[in-house]
Amino acid sequence: MRIVDLIEKKKMGGEHTKEEIDFIIDSLMNGVAADYQISAWLMAIYFKGMTQKETAYLTDAMLRSGEVINLGEYSDKVVDKHSTGGVGDKVTITLIPLLSAAGIPIAKLSGRALGYTGGTVDKLESIPGFRLDLSIDDMIKQLEKINVVIGMQTQNLTPADGKLYALRDVTSTVNSIPLIASSVVSKKLASGSNNIILDVKYGGGAFMETPEDAEKLSQCMVDIGKNLNRNITAVITYMDEPLGRAVGNSLEVIEAIEFLKGNIKTGDIAELTYDFASLALVQMGKYDNQEDAKKYLREIIESGKAINKLRELIIAQGGNDNVIDNYATFATASSKVECIADKSGYIHKINAHDIAYASKILGAGRDKKGDPIDYSVGVFLNKKTGEEVKAGDVLYTLYSNNDEKTKIAKESCDKAFVIKDCKPELKPLIYKIIK
Amino acid sequence: MRIVDLIEKKKMGGEHTKEEIDFIIDSLMNGVAADYQISAWLMAIYFKGMTQKETAYLTDAMLRSGEVINLGEYSDKVVDKHSTGGVGDKVTITLIPLLSAAGIPIAKLSGRALGYTGGTVDKLESIPGFRLDLSIDDMIKQLEKINVVIGMQTQNLTPADGKLYALRDVTSTVNSIPLIASSVVSKKLASGSNNIILDVKYGGGAFMETPEDAEKLSQCMVDIGKNLNRNITAVITYMDEPLGRAVGNSLEVIEAIEFLKGNIKTGDIAELTYDFASLALVQMGKYDNQEDAKKYLREIIESGKAINKLRELIIAQGGNDNVIDNYATFATASSKVECIADKSGYIHKINAHDIAYASKILGAGRDKKGDPIDYSVGVFLNKKTGEEVKAGDVLYTLYSNNDEKTKIAKESCDKAFVIKDCKPELKPLIYKIIK
Repeated sequence: MRIVDLIEKKKMGGEHTKEEIDFIIDSLMNGVAADYQISAWLMAIYFKGMTQKETAYLTDAMLRSGEVINLGEYSDKVVDKHSTGGVGDKVTITLIPLLSAAGIPIAKLSGRALGYTGGTVDKLESIPGFRLDLSIDDMIKQLEKINVVIGMQTQNLTPADGKLYALRDVTSTVNSIPLIASSVVSKKLASGSNNIILDVKYGGGAFMETPEDAEKLSQCMVDIGKNLNRNITAVITYMDEPLGRAVGNSLEVIEAIEFLKGNIKTGDIAELTYDFASLALVQMGKYDNQEDAKKYLREIIESGKAINKLRELIIAQGGNDNVIDNYATFATASSKVECIADKSGYIHKINAHDIAYASKILGAGRDKKGDPIDYSVGVFLNKKTGEEVKAGDVLYTLYSNNDEKTKIAKESCDKAFVIKDCKPELKPLIYKIIK
Repeated sequence: MRIVDLIEKKKMGGEHTKEEIDFIIDSLMNGVAADYQISAWLMAIYFKGMTQKETAYLTDAMLRSGEVINLGEYSDKVVDKHSTGGVGDKVTITLIPLLSAAGIPIAKLSGRALGYTGGTVDKLESIPGFRLDLSIDDMIKQLEKINVVIGMQTQNLTPADGKLYALRDVTSTVNSIPLIASSVVSKKLASGSNNIILDVKYGGGAFMETPEDAEKLSQCMVDIGKNLNRNITAVITYMDEPLGRAVGNSLEVIEAIEFLKGNIKTGDIAELTYDFASLALVQMGKYDNQEDAKKYLREIIESGKAINKLRELIIAQGGNDNVIDNYATFATASSKVECIADKSGYIHKINAHDIAYASKILGAGRDKKGDPIDYSVGVFLNKKTGEEVKAGDVLYTLYSNNDEKTKIAKESCDKAFVIKDCKPELKPLIYKIIK
């Protein structure tokens, strides 16, 4: 087999066999294929696509290129949830204790993040003492004991995906549905669970711009699951403004705690959490339909079982559970600046990118690996899209440790809000579920 | 400007500006662009093509990437002819003395060749003493004196084309019309002439398989000429069997000498030589139409002026002109093996690839740069396609210095001939002229 012949085959619209895909990924890893050959192959895939089978083979080959977490008998029992990423997305932190309290074992590997806000690992590390660098053995022991564990992704998962992504990034071959799908799914499968719920976001600032593209990507990822005998459900959700009201690490954990305490009953965070959790209960055969599952989940919250599960999780992973009772246990920003609306009307839009940029400027995100994060800072949206506002109302609140940064963040946030006289038409949060 | 953005632009079907093409070629040469970026860009060009203007810009940028031969006032006066390559193609050697004798100055740079048979440089070097490593000054002096000179291509011409071609070869991006066209034309323009006749071959074993593809390529090259103010004519010719009867270095020179002496009046070599030469006379304004020009060219041959011009050329470049009068002046093969037809009928096909392979096995070609060539060996076709043959007639003759090689060459040649009872239908040699 020669790489140049396989490039030619894909260029002419042919379908690769499993052996061919394995050969390409092996050649990528052992240096037999030059980067310039792989990038030409990626561009041919951009134009000619991949069949369901090819995409599944590619996912499987990337999965096997590195470490694969083995959760043993838990592989089929646990549920994993992954989001394509959104500003203010703390649904992992609301979902995990809720589902675990509802009897579904959860073993999740999360990542740090580059960019505007921290990743789930960074958010959880805002809880003093909370540790995520657990061994697989420790993870399984904790699962057995309290039915929930959150670990940290290592560099050893899917190195082939890492190499391919680095090439795609500099050769304009990122936006290919089968390449995106195999990248996302291979990483998730390497994390050990066979039951995966994917939150595929579309809209301003989301990974996919249109619901049509998000649907194609979702279908492709669900198909990979079918071809590799994994249980994958994709939920296509609309994201234009930030999710929830808090953007920033400890601020987002506090919002998640408020939800788990039962203090947040409506809005996007509540709706998405109940939707994903009820889907998981149906997927794992605990309920026949999502409505019944949601009723049960509301009882779990009202009864205090959900917030207690979070407390158990925090204690098990070395964190200070006082954060639940007293938010001052978190690191606290030195200044809290309430920013006022200068006109009355309805919120039509809150540009997620501008809010994320403000949060980043305040210190909540990082530019490069290893940069420190300020857990205490961020933006709280006192008003969300669709809500009425009167001139003089607080629009948003900045949590900051530096006046100069406050000024820049305020400029970005002011730009983010669009206020008009009429009521806006709101798009439904969930566009479609594909399974 | 960033390479990744330019790849994206081409991927989306955009048209590059002159500045963008220059940036890409500069970045290729100075290492700012990685090979994996260039190969992705090339694959995007394969799928999205290039406009006439882009192709001309690319040709010009490659042209300027290295040395450009400056023939001074001769640039507009001389004619250059280039063939996309064919087995037994000695039309350069017939055409150059003929045109020069007809009053058209010729300054041609030729190449050695890898593959089955030698290039024009190798063929001419079979003339004892003939030197082609001339400086530009020497070339111009010889032009002034005898109106004809043949030099040798150096490595310094169009290095960007060399780099691009090396990448295309291993990334399955060779067969893109604008990339082929810009590669061929940039090399020709770097050789200094502004008047170029291109022989674009199609058929079995030729660079282009179908006349339609050959026409697209020809149109593209002629358009580059128009965009860069050069005079380019493309002649689309059919090649299925070898050109002429001789394949091998000195054997081909002898066939060319026979034509220039007036001993070969019909057949493919005569037809193509008269066609290209008459086109050049029309292109340079010496005649209004090709028919009148051909009459004049036949007079040049009959009068001995053409063969005398070859003699002048050989003497001027240090060669032994006795080769013209006594073919034994060439190195001579130790054995001459006449191979006999085992059935009667008409020749329907002579597979050019099989004959070329035989010639290569006998020692007429080279595998890698610097390999020695045996000038004396080769294959002579006693019968050509369309001719009648009787069992017992000589089909072809092998000139060899090694019995083992003779055996392998004979097997290949026997395979090449297809003999049937009926007369074959012959395709016209010239499909179309594009200017």
